[in-house]
Amino acid sequence: MTIMFRAFSNRIGCRFASSSSQSGNRFRLGFGTGIALVSFGFFGGYAWSSFTIAQNVPLFLSPAGSKTSLKDLCSPEYLNPTFALDKFNNRLSQIVEKQDMSFLQSDIDDHSFNNYTLHKPQDNERPHVIVYPRDTEHVSRIMKLCYEFGVPVIPFAGGTSIEGQFVSTRNINSDKQCECEQQDTVTVVLDFNKYMNKVLKINADDLDCVVQPAVVAKDLNDEYLDKLGLLFGPDGAPGCEIGGQIGTSCSGTNAFRYGTMKENVVNMTVVMADGTIIKTRQRPKKSSNGYNLTGLFIGSEGTLGVVTEATVKLHVKPVYETISIVSFQELNQATKMVQLLTKKGILGINAIELLDANMMKAINFSGQTSRSWKEQPTLLFKLGSHNKRILNELIDDIKGLSKDTNCTSCEFADTPNQQEELWSARKSIFWSSIDYGRHLFGPDVKIWSTDIAVPVSHLSTVIDDSLKDVTDAGLYGTIVGHVGDGNFHCLVMYNKENEQKALKVIDNMSIRAIAYEGTCSGEHGIGTSKRKFLTMELGDDTISVMRRIKMALDPARILNPDKLFKIDPADKKD
Amino acid sequence: MTIMFRAFSNRIGCRFASSSSQSGNRFRLGFGTGIALVSFGFFGGYAWSSFTIAQNVPLFLSPAGSKTSLKDLCSPEYLNPTFALDKFNNRLSQIVEKQDMSFLQSDIDDHSFNNYTLHKPQDNERPHVIVYPRDTEHVSRIMKLCYEFGVPVIPFAGGTSIEGQFVSTRNINSDKQCECEQQDTVTVVLDFNKYMNKVLKINADDLDCVVQPAVVAKDLNDEYLDKLGLLFGPDGAPGCEIGGQIGTSCSGTNAFRYGTMKENVVNMTVVMADGTIIKTRQRPKKSSNGYNLTGLFIGSEGTLGVVTEATVKLHVKPVYETISIVSFQELNQATKMVQLLTKKGILGINAIELLDANMMKAINFSGQTSRSWKEQPTLLFKLGSHNKRILNELIDDIKGLSKDTNCTSCEFADTPNQQEELWSARKSIFWSSIDYGRHLFGPDVKIWSTDIAVPVSHLSTVIDDSLKDVTDAGLYGTIVGHVGDGNFHCLVMYNKENEQKALKVIDNMSIRAIAYEGTCSGEHGIGTSKRKFLTMELGDDTISVMRRIKMALDPARILNPDKLFKIDPADKKD
Repeated sequence: MTIMFRAFSNRIGCRFASSSSQSGNRFRLGFGTGIALVSFGFFGGYAWSSFTIAQNVPLFLSPAGSKTSLKDLCSPEYLNPTFALDKFNNRLSQIVEKQDMSFLQSDIDDHSFNNYTLHKPQDNERPHVIVYPRDTEHVSRIMKLCYEFGVPVIPFAGGTSIEGQFVSTRNINSDKQCECEQQDTVTVVLDFNKYMNKVLKINADDLDCVVQPAVVAKDLNDEYLDKLGLLFGPDGAPGCEIGGQIGTSCSGTNAFRYGTMKENVVNMTVVMADGTIIKTRQRPKKSSNGYNLTGLFIGSEGTLGVVTEATVKLHVKPVYETISIVSFQELNQATKMVQLLTKKGILGINAIELLDANMMKAINFSGQTSRSWKEQPTLLFKLGSHNKRILNELIDDIKGLSKDTNCTSCEFADTPNQQEELWSARKSIFWSSIDYGRHLFGPDVKIWSTDIAVPVSHLSTVIDDSLKDVTDAGLYGTIVGHVGDGNFHCLVMYNKENEQKALKVIDNMSIRAIAYEGTCSGEHGIGTSKRKFLTMELGDDTISVMRRIKMALDPARILNPDKLFKIDPADKKD
Repeated sequence: MTIMFRAFSNRIGCRFASSSSQSGNRFRLGFGTGIALVSFGFFGGYAWSSFTIAQNVPLFLSPAGSKTSLKDLCSPEYLNPTFALDKFNNRLSQIVEKQDMSFLQSDIDDHSFNNYTLHKPQDNERPHVIVYPRDTEHVSRIMKLCYEFGVPVIPFAGGTSIEGQFVSTRNINSDKQCECEQQDTVTVVLDFNKYMNKVLKINADDLDCVVQPAVVAKDLNDEYLDKLGLLFGPDGAPGCEIGGQIGTSCSGTNAFRYGTMKENVVNMTVVMADGTIIKTRQRPKKSSNGYNLTGLFIGSEGTLGVVTEATVKLHVKPVYETISIVSFQELNQATKMVQLLTKKGILGINAIELLDANMMKAINFSGQTSRSWKEQPTLLFKLGSHNKRILNELIDDIKGLSKDTNCTSCEFADTPNQQEELWSARKSIFWSSIDYGRHLFGPDVKIWSTDIAVPVSHLSTVIDDSLKDVTDAGLYGTIVGHVGDGNFHCLVMYNKENEQKALKVIDNMSIRAIAYEGTCSGEHGIGTSKRKFLTMELGDDTISVMRRIKMALDPARILNPDKLFKIDPADKKD
């Protein structure tokens, strides 16, 4: 009975139902507990909510209700009872050719973190193997194997995310953080960059194109779309790839005009936890045909399925473009101008970026641009149209509104070179901030880029309060904001001595955003590092509904475990 | 043991686990079956997929895999084992005041169908009671009661949907269509029109507003937003309300410019099947904060939760507007012009509507407009801008492109009255088609409005083939298309004699749309009438993933049962 029973417990991982020759009996005990609870709950009026008091009734004994609280779960048991590493490697090598997997430490490290994130994994948080799948069918076969063995899987595209989205939290050396008999496990990273990096089809007449997950968004624009007069909207970090952009619901400077990933994906092909291959929709521009699975997978950070192909929306590149830069005495004058502009309903404003006085000071200090700038709150606008006369009207609108909001200066680029020059301020923000940070805090300065979003009406208050908090802590922060969306980043500079102060200030920004009807993540996502803020923002019940969906689609909890919210009651991290 | 056990089986509804003094034993038998299957599957390689061969292992014994096939399920057992109608009514009356519920046959009928739909319910498909909840908390208390008793619930807003979205399929007189011991049941309709019909807050600076589900979209625009120079985008049927627009992911003539409901909801408050109240997001314009629950509930037709409040996006109303009407010799010239227009990247085109030659003929025949029209394929454009000079540029663009595509005429409205006159053609399509239909097929003519969408590049082919199919069947069809989105409706006219031919032609349109990478529903939704086409369009596996989500969030299957896809293997309907 034991082994057969393990087949159950293995996928559910519950203390009373884990490995033991007595597990059959224990199981009946556990089941009896479930019954008692149900009957109690049933006649108690709220038939099923009472289940949540059952610490060790696994999910498959508590189908009741609409949510799964963390305390309803027991720790997952990864790896099946007959697991042996050599056996798994052997089965894997029957599916994946030798040259398409790597156990090299350098590859393992390259797939464990990047240089932009401060949320470095612990030394033991490393994957077991990097696998380079060939196509959707191949991913499905690998997933079926990992599902059979209970091996965690992390999809990997550009690897530019900074909130710990691709940390191998479940690993062979994991310290026992689980109260119950947690087994060691191994993690497989699925890297699409070797084979699944192609633009498969461009449907120019329908303004969409079909891509694989490792297509670099910038390359898609530069090498494929630009010559067609088309563009793909969402612009994340340099090197970010469409698979990852889907995972974190990426947006960037263009979102004000073209929307986030949520508005830019037509359909996707997804391999589910058990290896099932689904396509979420066909290719009509709009539809009203059942659950919006496309929208559900966007932003799920690889926890619900592995996206192997996507049809993304394209937009028409403006034929005529210009850049404008407008400076103000006060920050709230800049946000006021953005509000006036938005409420005027002007079409053709493709980006509105805010750089605060601190940022302009840092840019001047670093001298990375060919000119110097007013050290004041500054707005950068991208304007575009298919028609030169319309573009001139837009320029007049910006001039008029800048004047109405008492700007101190308003410049426009007349030539492509001038456009380059004006936008160079925006491009140089990161390295300029580092230069200035070194000047202030020495060569070992660290910089952390926060990412919050609030309703635009709260924006200037939240930025002012955040900067005051930074200054009061004896730190320095520079602001860059996708201000048309109420989304901004504060680059907080600090060193070893004041690291704790810095982390507190950074946490305060998420808390402040939530207090002002906003979010702890405008575009970087949650990963492992913002889980506590996501719960603070949405509340336990909303998270428990998300967890219910996770448990339904990935009952073995093998897909990118521990991201977004906790799936293991024994997980001690924030 | 039996009653306690019933507490389980009641929510799962499985043959071997239903009412019987032997159910405990039967259950162990069933459970043993489950074990055997798992162990078989486990060592068979694909541990969990083998579960799908188990006809009567209920979901809560098969947590494995990522999908729920219909054959994995047993029929739901509605109503708890101690159910008695008077007891339920008594408990309900403790929560809902007498004047806030109705058992009147006229009210019951008013909440069972409308005059626009051809998918009339069977005589016995009627709700038990209409309840008028006061607020979100009230809905939660009612849901908890219905969940406890196992009573199906159908949320009701404008009642304008036409695909059978609010049919009470589970009712006290239901014919036993289920092989297992199906119990009679009762259905509660939650009508928000008495109390939950308010605009709660308008955040003009953030371009959003907070509404209750029974707010009529047109009233929101006419009475609240127009004076602020703002508008709510999605425009469904006259009288459609925002709760229903969320349910079916409504779009309409404005979707080309403002998007569908999927792009127009910021957050929502939802009461889950078990009465849990959640809010999907806060109020930032964009976020990257976990699963996109907002997007999941949009288009779910009340099968996953009851939406009791929503924050919707607002847009700025163009200060200057005009209407243009352009006629062509051939349909593909019209669609060609739409493609050229779209690929030129012109901003400020707020609607592109196509009326075919048959429709123009019908409008002339009915004489409902103050003038007559060219009986040719015709495009109607809504143009708008904040700036008169920009509007004039747009007018020149339309003139130029009409000429390039060899239009036979191109008119613009100079005055508001002329705008009214030109748009009157669009407004009169339904009644004009009925008039002409009566002329052709007699006073008992019926008209059915199909709703399909395809990639724009396939549009003219699909429309031509569809009209040929209509004509070959000896019927008459008129076309109105939201052509910028590749979405069109064919109003097929028929009478009793040729009803079967008509239904076949109508089905063919869905099949044709699917064959051309499109969808069987562009905006009307699936309800009960298009379930078979949804499966044809997306495939069993995709539907089974949707069903998995349904079972996770509503394990008792009480929320608007039988819509979108089957949830009962004994369901004999298409």
